[in-house]
Amino acid sequence: MDESDKLKAVVLLSGGLDSSTALYLAQRQGFECHCLIFEYSQRHRREIKSAVKVAKKAKCRFKIIKIKLPWSSSSLTDNRKDIPENPQIKKRYSTPLKTFQLPSTYVPGRNTIFISYALSYAESINAKTIFIGANAVDFSGYPDCRPKYYRAWKKLLKALGAGVEIRVPLIGQTKEQIIKLGTKLKVPYKYTWSCYKGGRWPCGVCDSCKFRAKGFREAGRKDPAAL
Amino acid sequence: MDESDKLKAVVLLSGGLDSSTALYLAQRQGFECHCLIFEYSQRHRREIKSAVKVAKKAKCRFKIIKIKLPWSSSSLTDNRKDIPENPQIKKRYSTPLKTFQLPSTYVPGRNTIFISYALSYAESINAKTIFIGANAVDFSGYPDCRPKYYRAWKKLLKALGAGVEIRVPLIGQTKEQIIKLGTKLKVPYKYTWSCYKGGRWPCGVCDSCKFRAKGFREAGRKDPAAL
Repeated sequence: MDESDKLKAVVLLSGGLDSSTALYLAQRQGFECHCLIFEYSQRHRREIKSAVKVAKKAKCRFKIIKIKLPWSSSSLTDNRKDIPENPQIKKRYSTPLKTFQLPSTYVPGRNTIFISYALSYAESINAKTIFIGANAVDFSGYPDCRPKYYRAWKKLLKALGAGVEIRVPLIGQTKEQIIKLGTKLKVPYKYTWSCYKGGRWPCGVCDSCKFRAKGFREAGRKDPAAL
Repeated sequence: MDESDKLKAVVLLSGGLDSSTALYLAQRQGFECHCLIFEYSQRHRREIKSAVKVAKKAKCRFKIIKIKLPWSSSSLTDNRKDIPENPQIKKRYSTPLKTFQLPSTYVPGRNTIFISYALSYAESINAKTIFIGANAVDFSGYPDCRPKYYRAWKKLLKALGAGVEIRVPLIGQTKEQIIKLGTKLKVPYKYTWSCYKGGRWPCGVCDSCKFRAKGFREAGRKDPAAL
């Protein structure tokens, strides 16, 4: 294995704040980043365009992978459903799953599928690290964003023995901390997209818009993507 | 949750001996089976046709999911490569991965991707069980067929908290035992396909053909799919 192989990483890039920050962090840590962008029947293609812009700005290679989940009834993949406008309860990651209702925006198995593709890609290009910008503080309460889920992934990857590890550097950070870090790393936040809806401008009322606004407010910065 | 929900299972069906036997076993155990069949750029569609025949014969619902792995250089997905004709070493599942060369037929991340789709499907239809016919005795030495990999999956599914479990009932059985069990269960082996190549008839010389022939020979039965 030569030195250049050792430093390859696969980065899961959604085009949002967190994954874009994770990408810039991985680059800062010296990795040659290969981004994976997924088209999974999201209700809009806006976030895919954002992801592509961010990858290009970061001068990374990227691949767009189409996946079909013909059984998903998530409001994130079904245009006929409403996106909830009440912010979900925060810091819910330590709550047993049974005790709360999953948000309608939850896409079953989504991160598990994303990571498994990243594993396949990593094994194929001899990358030893997968980066995912999952966050369990200012988040919608998805079970596949919680620390114990990623601890289990680390063990699974070890059991597989392919020498690939997963890093989740933003898991315990607030949006404020992430934005402060990303600002230092010069993440092009103006290209990022967080809104669950696919309008020309962010709706400002969905979970994701609210977390973003709160993050920029608390970081004392203006959101460069805002009107 | 009503009784019918409790008994749903998602079965990963490749059209081979093992997964077909796992399907019939799941049915015998009382599950309403929903099969997932993958088209992952295999070098031939023969095994997909076989899987569909088996699912229909078993009177199961099934879905065919297309996945693209544009980075895979496996000989199983690349027609320009030769399928090896020397049987791989058996009982290699306890060997540390580093100490042996992966077979060229290994598709990076394949079972991990399959299981993650099965998880997504299971969560969506409220199935609590995933069946996979993986086998670590008469097998090609793939790391994603080994018992510790499935133990890690069990833990990951638990960490996710969605109440979905994975069963790998044939993991420790020989092909002989699997064929004897399947014969009792009336698995339509004449519809199954094992050959890695996509000819009109099985090649008889690839790993998979050899394991199949050995299994039928040791079980003292004629392979109904043989000439």
